[in-house]
Amino acid sequence: MTTTRVAILGASGYTGAELVRLLARHPSMEIVAITADRKAGQEMADVFPHLAILDLPALTSIDEVDWAGVDAVFCALPHATTQKVIAGLPERLKVVDLSADFRLEDPEAYAKWYGHEHSEIELQKEVVYGLPEFYRDRIRDARIVANTGCYVATALIPLIPVFRAGLADPDWVVIDAKSGVSGAGRSAKEANLFTEVSEGFHAYSVAAHRHMGEIDQELSKAAGRSVVATFTPHLLPQNRGILATTYLKADAEAVHAHLSKQFAGEPFVHVLPFGKTPATRHVRGSNHCLIGVVADRQQGRTIVISVLDNLVKGASGQAIQNMNLMLGLPETTGLEQLPLFP
Amino acid sequence: MTTTRVAILGASGYTGAELVRLLARHPSMEIVAITADRKAGQEMADVFPHLAILDLPALTSIDEVDWAGVDAVFCALPHATTQKVIAGLPERLKVVDLSADFRLEDPEAYAKWYGHEHSEIELQKEVVYGLPEFYRDRIRDARIVANTGCYVATALIPLIPVFRAGLADPDWVVIDAKSGVSGAGRSAKEANLFTEVSEGFHAYSVAAHRHMGEIDQELSKAAGRSVVATFTPHLLPQNRGILATTYLKADAEAVHAHLSKQFAGEPFVHVLPFGKTPATRHVRGSNHCLIGVVADRQQGRTIVISVLDNLVKGASGQAIQNMNLMLGLPETTGLEQLPLFP
Amino acid sequence: MTTTRVAILGASGYTGAELVRLLARHPSMEIVAITADRKAGQEMADVFPHLAILDLPALTSIDEVDWAGVDAVFCALPHATTQKVIAGLPERLKVVDLSADFRLEDPEAYAKWYGHEHSEIELQKEVVYGLPEFYRDRIRDARIVANTGCYVATALIPLIPVFRAGLADPDWVVIDAKSGVSGAGRSAKEANLFTEVSEGFHAYSVAAHRHMGEIDQELSKAAGRSVVATFTPHLLPQNRGILATTYLKADAEAVHAHLSKQFAGEPFVHVLPFGKTPATRHVRGSNHCLIGVVADRQQGRTIVISVLDNLVKGASGQAIQNMNLMLGLPETTGLEQLPLFP
Amino acid sequence: MTTTRVAILGASGYTGAELVRLLARHPSMEIVAITADRKAGQEMADVFPHLAILDLPALTSIDEVDWAGVDAVFCALPHATTQKVIAGLPERLKVVDLSADFRLEDPEAYAKWYGHEHSEIELQKEVVYGLPEFYRDRIRDARIVANTGCYVATALIPLIPVFRAGLADPDWVVIDAKSGVSGAGRSAKEANLFTEVSEGFHAYSVAAHRHMGEIDQELSKAAGRSVVATFTPHLLPQNRGILATTYLKADAEAVHAHLSKQFAGEPFVHVLPFGKTPATRHVRGSNHCLIGVVADRQQGRTIVISVLDNLVKGASGQAIQNMNLMLGLPETTGLEQLPLFP
Repeated sequence: MTTTRVAILGASGYTGAELVRLLARHPSMEIVAITADRKAGQEMADVFPHLAILDLPALTSIDEVDWAGVDAVFCALPHATTQKVIAGLPERLKVVDLSADFRLEDPEAYAKWYGHEHSEIELQKEVVYGLPEFYRDRIRDARIVANTGCYVATALIPLIPVFRAGLADPDWVVIDAKSGVSGAGRSAKEANLFTEVSEGFHAYSVAAHRHMGEIDQELSKAAGRSVVATFTPHLLPQNRGILATTYLKADAEAVHAHLSKQFAGEPFVHVLPFGKTPATRHVRGSNHCLIGVVADRQQGRTIVISVLDNLVKGASGQAIQNMNLMLGLPETTGLEQLPLFP
Repeated sequence: MTTTRVAILGASGYTGAELVRLLARHPSMEIVAITADRKAGQEMADVFPHLAILDLPALTSIDEVDWAGVDAVFCALPHATTQKVIAGLPERLKVVDLSADFRLEDPEAYAKWYGHEHSEIELQKEVVYGLPEFYRDRIRDARIVANTGCYVATALIPLIPVFRAGLADPDWVVIDAKSGVSGAGRSAKEANLFTEVSEGFHAYSVAAHRHMGEIDQELSKAAGRSVVATFTPHLLPQNRGILATTYLKADAEAVHAHLSKQFAGEPFVHVLPFGKTPATRHVRGSNHCLIGVVADRQQGRTIVISVLDNLVKGASGQAIQNMNLMLGLPETTGLEQLPLFP
Repeated sequence: MTTTRVAILGASGYTGAELVRLLARHPSMEIVAITADRKAGQEMADVFPHLAILDLPALTSIDEVDWAGVDAVFCALPHATTQKVIAGLPERLKVVDLSADFRLEDPEAYAKWYGHEHSEIELQKEVVYGLPEFYRDRIRDARIVANTGCYVATALIPLIPVFRAGLADPDWVVIDAKSGVSGAGRSAKEANLFTEVSEGFHAYSVAAHRHMGEIDQELSKAAGRSVVATFTPHLLPQNRGILATTYLKADAEAVHAHLSKQFAGEPFVHVLPFGKTPATRHVRGSNHCLIGVVADRQQGRTIVISVLDNLVKGASGQAIQNMNLMLGLPETTGLEQLPLFP
Repeated sequence: MTTTRVAILGASGYTGAELVRLLARHPSMEIVAITADRKAGQEMADVFPHLAILDLPALTSIDEVDWAGVDAVFCALPHATTQKVIAGLPERLKVVDLSADFRLEDPEAYAKWYGHEHSEIELQKEVVYGLPEFYRDRIRDARIVANTGCYVATALIPLIPVFRAGLADPDWVVIDAKSGVSGAGRSAKEANLFTEVSEGFHAYSVAAHRHMGEIDQELSKAAGRSVVATFTPHLLPQNRGILATTYLKADAEAVHAHLSKQFAGEPFVHVLPFGKTPATRHVRGSNHCLIGVVADRQQGRTIVISVLDNLVKGASGQAIQNMNLMLGLPETTGLEQLPLFP
């Protein structure tokens, strides 16, 4: 098997570290460059001591990467700086972008949600949205894939099939989502201190979170008409895991039957028996997404609960799944780690 | 000021211990008896070492209590055993019951939600439902008060005024609630082990939680017609705190204005500025309830977020607030502790 | 009773907020000024939402305080900036300083541990070290009291009597200490993020922590000769609480008997029955210190375990206890809150 | 490569589940039987939902196992019941026992620490103590290996080489150890509830923990004379990880040099640069042990800090490492998972 030489851009954050964790054990990829502009020159062991046992290249700036020795790129840079970086990469490179910079197909939606103009509108046209369970064929042929947002993957993996099949009322979608703290990244903010997060719970960005742009886009595509979901994110006092509780006007048994059939062959998406619901701890550290469907006592209402690990299926694992597809590898390669519990 | 001599029945659980914590510093009540049938004979210091610094009577069985020396009773016994115990108490005693045994006015609803017949239907008729912000006058005259359930208090303190005023569509109520683990009590169950709860999140009793009986009762009374809310409880990896995110079909500004006015004089209920939302950690250990109201981006939808400490305003603090009313004391007596943060 | 008008300097940190929490319910003190230079002009409710229910003065800069209306000052400023601030205060003010700036009596020790010269050597001479259980009489007459460090209070409350009585070998002191994260303050540092602290444990500043200067000073005074303890601090994944496990060459029963006698009348220090050991959760939010003494299986070795809440008895509660003494108030005034558990 | 067919006895506890997690991805072992007497007949997915994605045999009782189809056994049964079970197994099976039943070579020591007679004294003679870094050769030839206790592995991996080399005073060993809650197993005990463990810290079994029998045995063998260490275990509010802080009378640089050399070729034991210390979170979920050595400021005292994941290198990973040796496989087979952080 040929080995694909990969670069990880932006390796000083949690999704970058998670890419290293997974790729270091990937049988067909080799990490040849890792960058972190502000920490260029340091060893990964100093930035992430849990990776000290690996033999990794030192961190460099993006400018220092020798692209001749690179076949594929994972881009885990902050939103807004990514568009220009990817536009500047050699065109022969396969790219999975974990930022939000290329997720919105409509540049006006991008400008609305991110507060500035899209700088690479032409490039956007060739980007494929990276939800492999729904866009597998297009991802295989893509040069650039925009990895989905973590909240979006959690909520929409069950909802897209439901709306494609017309099983739920598009005017009645309430997504109540809860995320672990690692979704906020590693930057030193008062709001994410242990003392500010532990032993407590709160909602944030209520009716204002940027992931709604993506949710609108994908739900509307699925429903074949405009869908505007209600979406409320909350912050959980835990490191990993997102759980979305979604309320639909739909027949629960029909939803369950359809999802069960839809995902029967999927390696990473699992529909629980009717009436059973999942926990984030049961996917911790793995690339799996679990889905439960319950009939509300109100006739005609369905409660769908979905979970995944925001750093794996919600970010770095998903990115590798996408890259596997782009490289013609079996989709599960390097992603078979089981959940870590407790 | 006269001192009221109180007995706490069922002091080996968390609500019992919380009653002791609060009553030990209450200027007008004195703890004269504490019971715990299975731990009779032990000292409270052995059962709850954080209370060892207090000079408390030893734990006894209920049978051993000398009722002649008791003026008022807090009953923190398990559901189902409480009805008979309270029926057997001398009639001159004031009683606040923290169990669910007398919360449902309709014995058929009781039988439906609790799975067995109500054994004290006559007694039920004189019980007053213990939400002081709405039933203050009746509580003042009551002999027996049924303290509200913790989820119910959290979700309904903001909803009752909204439905009384006809500000929201009664057919469109989705309550997504999240509780800390202390709500599950102190009994040794695998599901509540640290290893099973920490670093993870899940829903439970979806579409089946017993508190829905109370929610139906109180929302229906408020709306003047039958209301069947969708209600999903979740378990948070934290000790204390409940947060309810409620989705309504209503005008958010009207809801906010009404709640602000309604609660303007309340000592323990506070409505945040429009658009701001509360966190459970900001009420930890206190008897306060905070409410936030946000306009959803979907016109005509309102998101209401309310928080309280399930062991205080959701249980033992509420019970003392009720007893203060029953005894003619200022409602806030002994309940002015500020939240403990971090 | 006269009311003492107090200013809190540096109220945007956790010890400042804890002073507000406790002083707002203190029957003989009134908060008339709270400062936070970088947040001057803001309301405390914005900086600490859990205190929003209080009616507090707005935050100001120190320069804006009208000292004419102030009788006493709690100084919760960062180390190194405090010496000059206190030197500039009107001399008639009573001051409790929560920083480390005046704890070390020897200016050379100060320079060694804090890396710069002491700027107020004359002022230092009149400062009293604020461990009320041992320096009560001198604190009563003091104008400026240097509140003890949190690790120092935890470890030394049991050790000072032991060494004063000559019960342990001064060459054989190993203090293994563990602290909750709130001890690190509220500044936004990567190392204190939830994701970096939760679900893990580590030692820090091994053989190098600044509190060793204080430990040396106080143990040497107690022993009447130089004592150099081994001291290792660790960071616990919890908000509050310090536990020190101290290993001594001493007779455990003699140590226990002496400590029991020594602290028999103390309101805030409690010696557990021989062989029993305390938990940090049993003092959470309170001003209590619990001490356990166990005989090691190695004859002649004693294990002493002591706990307190680092923000209360380790900082703000201790400061109020000191100020009560300085003002001639009963020592426990405003400090009778019971521990919050769970 | 031949596949070894393995049975896991006692799979309803955390070490059993961890064996399943690791063995399900082991390239040379196949799980053919898993037992849990009280849950016989259930699916593993019901007992441990995080393993639901695996295709596993149903749980059976031990009696139901068809030994003809089994080559090797991991025994994760409770202490005291294990001796008879292992004595009853076919002699051709390779066995790694994770209980304490065969760890103590001296039956009198066993009786002293475990409170009952050893029932299989003859069998004990052929058991090899399972610390692969020190007994690798004997383990290769063993039929039965007694996996080390989790505290013992943590503390002794660095100490055995130090005492073998005579680098530390055997009369001066203080081990202050801290463990996550998963070490207490999955049985439903009040003391291990989330509410009793989180947001707090305490010592337990002070001067009385059973692992001291093993520590004595192994330190004494290493030192060539009787060593009686002081050992204090504490309970951390986290799931996984043990950290031991050990105080020695020794030259720190000599200790560091010796350990660095000793472990230079070890795949799972890593000595950090002199003066650096490890965190439990940096080994979470992995089979690695990290060691830090610091010179105390007291001349002649050395502080050694070692960490591992109690369920992996402290139990199930270690067991697989031992079994790999017994089967002639490369020692690291199936154990290369990287730590999960955050």
